[in-house]
Amino acid sequence: MSERTAPGAKTSAGNFFEDFRVGQELRHATPRTLTTGDAALYTALYGSRFALNCSDDFARALGLHAAPIDDWLAFHVVFGKTVPDISLNAVANLGYAGGRFGLPIFPGDTLEARSTVIGVKENSNRKTGVVYVRTHGTNQRGETVLDYVRWVMVNKRDAASPAPETVVPSLPEAVPAAELLVPPDLDLRGYDADAAGSAALWEDYAQGERIDHVDGMTIEEAEHALATRLYQNTARVHFNQHSESKGRFGRRLIYGGHVISLARALSFNGLANAFRIAALNGGSHVAPVFAGDTVYAWSAVLATLELPRHKDLGALRLRTIATKNRPCGDFPYRDDAGAYDPAVVLDLDYTVLIKRR
Amino acid sequence: MSERTAPGAKTSAGNFFEDFRVGQELRHATPRTLTTGDAALYTALYGSRFALNCSDDFARALGLHAAPIDDWLAFHVVFGKTVPDISLNAVANLGYAGGRFGLPIFPGDTLEARSTVIGVKENSNRKTGVVYVRTHGTNQRGETVLDYVRWVMVNKRDAASPAPETVVPSLPEAVPAAELLVPPDLDLRGYDADAAGSAALWEDYAQGERIDHVDGMTIEEAEHALATRLYQNTARVHFNQHSESKGRFGRRLIYGGHVISLARALSFNGLANAFRIAALNGGSHVAPVFAGDTVYAWSAVLATLELPRHKDLGALRLRTIATKNRPCGDFPYRDDAGAYDPAVVLDLDYTVLIKRR
Amino acid sequence: MSERTAPGAKTSAGNFFEDFRVGQELRHATPRTLTTGDAALYTALYGSRFALNCSDDFARALGLHAAPIDDWLAFHVVFGKTVPDISLNAVANLGYAGGRFGLPIFPGDTLEARSTVIGVKENSNRKTGVVYVRTHGTNQRGETVLDYVRWVMVNKRDAASPAPETVVPSLPEAVPAAELLVPPDLDLRGYDADAAGSAALWEDYAQGERIDHVDGMTIEEAEHALATRLYQNTARVHFNQHSESKGRFGRRLIYGGHVISLARALSFNGLANAFRIAALNGGSHVAPVFAGDTVYAWSAVLATLELPRHKDLGALRLRTIATKNRPCGDFPYRDDAGAYDPAVVLDLDYTVLIKRR
Repeated sequence: MSERTAPGAKTSAGNFFEDFRVGQELRHATPRTLTTGDAALYTALYGSRFALNCSDDFARALGLHAAPIDDWLAFHVVFGKTVPDISLNAVANLGYAGGRFGLPIFPGDTLEARSTVIGVKENSNRKTGVVYVRTHGTNQRGETVLDYVRWVMVNKRDAASPAPETVVPSLPEAVPAAELLVPPDLDLRGYDADAAGSAALWEDYAQGERIDHVDGMTIEEAEHALATRLYQNTARVHFNQHSESKGRFGRRLIYGGHVISLARALSFNGLANAFRIAALNGGSHVAPVFAGDTVYAWSAVLATLELPRHKDLGALRLRTIATKNRPCGDFPYRDDAGAYDPAVVLDLDYTVLIKRR
Repeated sequence: MSERTAPGAKTSAGNFFEDFRVGQELRHATPRTLTTGDAALYTALYGSRFALNCSDDFARALGLHAAPIDDWLAFHVVFGKTVPDISLNAVANLGYAGGRFGLPIFPGDTLEARSTVIGVKENSNRKTGVVYVRTHGTNQRGETVLDYVRWVMVNKRDAASPAPETVVPSLPEAVPAAELLVPPDLDLRGYDADAAGSAALWEDYAQGERIDHVDGMTIEEAEHALATRLYQNTARVHFNQHSESKGRFGRRLIYGGHVISLARALSFNGLANAFRIAALNGGSHVAPVFAGDTVYAWSAVLATLELPRHKDLGALRLRTIATKNRPCGDFPYRDDAGAYDPAVVLDLDYTVLIKRR
Repeated sequence: MSERTAPGAKTSAGNFFEDFRVGQELRHATPRTLTTGDAALYTALYGSRFALNCSDDFARALGLHAAPIDDWLAFHVVFGKTVPDISLNAVANLGYAGGRFGLPIFPGDTLEARSTVIGVKENSNRKTGVVYVRTHGTNQRGETVLDYVRWVMVNKRDAASPAPETVVPSLPEAVPAAELLVPPDLDLRGYDADAAGSAALWEDYAQGERIDHVDGMTIEEAEHALATRLYQNTARVHFNQHSESKGRFGRRLIYGGHVISLARALSFNGLANAFRIAALNGGSHVAPVFAGDTVYAWSAVLATLELPRHKDLGALRLRTIATKNRPCGDFPYRDDAGAYDPAVVLDLDYTVLIKRR
């Protein structure tokens, strides 16, 4: 145990690279019932306006018993549970892959999370290594809510520790359309696009199309800290100005998921009928975001996907790019050498469900 | 569409003066279920203490099935829905009139909003015009929750566009007592003034009386942004420091409704038994408010109103004045020439229901 | 009444020392229904992770019908109600004693509070006096939720007023184990320590043991103001920067209870199975805390207590020390002369219930 822990080792300073082995199962602490209180806070934090998550009546018209909790809120809660066990000593959150959203979470449902270590690879500097985990979020009935892979660079406790055998999992480039999950009770015959705020449905989007989401949102220190505590994410870089003032950036770093949620909320202006996140194909937190930064976003349609067995429902594979302090009317992304525009902070590849005509 | 929108016009940059015509009906997006989560946030944002909105048991003693959502919270949610369609390109929110609060909203009820354009008038500068709308907020059963007129100054897309025929609606100075709506199940025999925090009932207020609400509340950037996102109000002046830093004030402007709610919460000290907003007769956001400002308030009793058919219930027509960074012990208002005291930020004319002996 | 109140005396400027007499009963205003909305906000404010308060399913496995509201949230709401009557003119909150937590509060329960004045003692400067009150918090069925003594130093309205007869109540050093209340339906056979996040149970703690809670949390102005308004605590020092800029510290003072809740949340790392606060034996807000400060905490086990009639449940009497801007790895407390380390802000003596093997 680290020298920072108390005698008796009742406190945890998190796992180091040496503590992970392929095949290891981690059951993460603190089951969490999500409620309309969490949903209200989420609205206050991001201003999201997707009708399915805002209105019980809109949801009931689609066969659901209530407005489901925002998909990214469920994601952040599952992610937060993994932090004390997976990434408390992480140097960087490197990527996501193969993320599938399963059953929607409704107010009153309880989320739990488990992870399996599926890869480890020591870095050549011998001070850090990469850990791959598949995390499984379930509801109180054990049904899958979310399933995704992420990989993180984690500090070693001791550079002299022997390197484990390298295992790097093979990961899908994207979740195939045939594997996307559609909420079983969903019946889109009652879908009201007027109420949802846009006439643009699946047929109106084309591969390669780019959409500027127009608006920008400035982040305050209190806002990202409230959000990240709501998710019970304990990474100290987000909360402790006293320690971070001596750290890499001199200040608290905003949880990358906060930026994902902001970008999603901004994307309402252009994607109002994309009512459900179905997959997280990949993503990169390209640059750090700090309080005072204003986040803008644009999206590209990577693919329009038909869903077998669902005539009134399609999917869009999207790349959403978020920037800081730079509007996205000209779609900033990468230069010819592949380097990101310096304003880009998020490059997210995900799939949404959207109404078809 | 504006040059800021993406190809394909899936995003909206809001309506301009030319887009409005008298008689036009606008159905606003995103139905919104209000919950105890919204109520808790509202308490955290303003610290309001009116017993009816705080206690299910207090509400049940009056014949209601639960504590209703604060009336101004319902107002802000209805107002917020209108912003993308009415005032995204507004230069100024000019006034309110003829506002009536109908059925209370309870946790679980869903608000929707529609507006009718009832007047247009181009300004002599030809760059802007005034648009008058009557907005109608309903619950999930289509019952009226709120009905009010507001008028805003909106930019023209093109100064060269021809002026429409001027139509200026005739508006009431105030909602008459006979038209005030009382929640149908309300039975004040179980009213507990001790629990509500004051012995002062309708008979204790006199026309012309002035009440200093004593306390002040400082507003933080995160607070007004959380509030305004909670209301899903999308006016960029409230959220985008990056663009506002180059704007009129160099900083984000606080949503005027935030100040209304603060003034209402402060007015508990002096009006604890004024448990329900019945009418919004008029109002003016006299000066901008910014983060760091401290809001104080005082009220004048404009009229004491008897309600036909309600022996145990009366109404007070109030003028509540909010100031910034100036206590209200000497009731700052207007000078002899009619100019507002420079500290005044809000001049609100509204009617409350209050217990009679 | 003070000169700050309006004509007609409908507003209150709070009670002064002369207004209190031994035996006086005060019924505090604004009954308050606590909801899952309050619980979500509490999580967002402190990031607490105790499983019993986070998961309905964890709570049901222990025989409760839902996750109870965090004990300190219930405390703060009761405390907040007393402020307008007890401590609006307080110079300092001097101490707590004999606090017992009774029935847990569940979402939907309504809190009310009453206080009895049990002691008064004028100070020798004749400008202030100490008032002792026993406050009783109840639910909507009149059942006890919380019962505690606090004493405050309160300004006199007039230094020339005659001193009352001094009455100083005798107060217990701590609540004895035999008087601790255990929720009646609690059945710990279904307790899942893995889900709760730690294997350390009652038997693993020893008298004299010290635990560093490792993490630190920085407080923003918006956060403590949101919290304190949520508790409907009206003490102006927490909210009014305009007046406080001319006051003792030049800025808003953070409500001491906010620091208690932060310390409790931090104590999860080391005390994850201490699922319930049973007693508040004493406490002192040693130094003021301001926005921007980072709070750390450590705890000492003052006693391990067996509970008669509860084989699977024990108690720990704890001293939790919170500091500002100073990690607690070396357990900062008092020097040899008894003076607090300058970083200490809270010295709290309380008793928790914890699972036994």
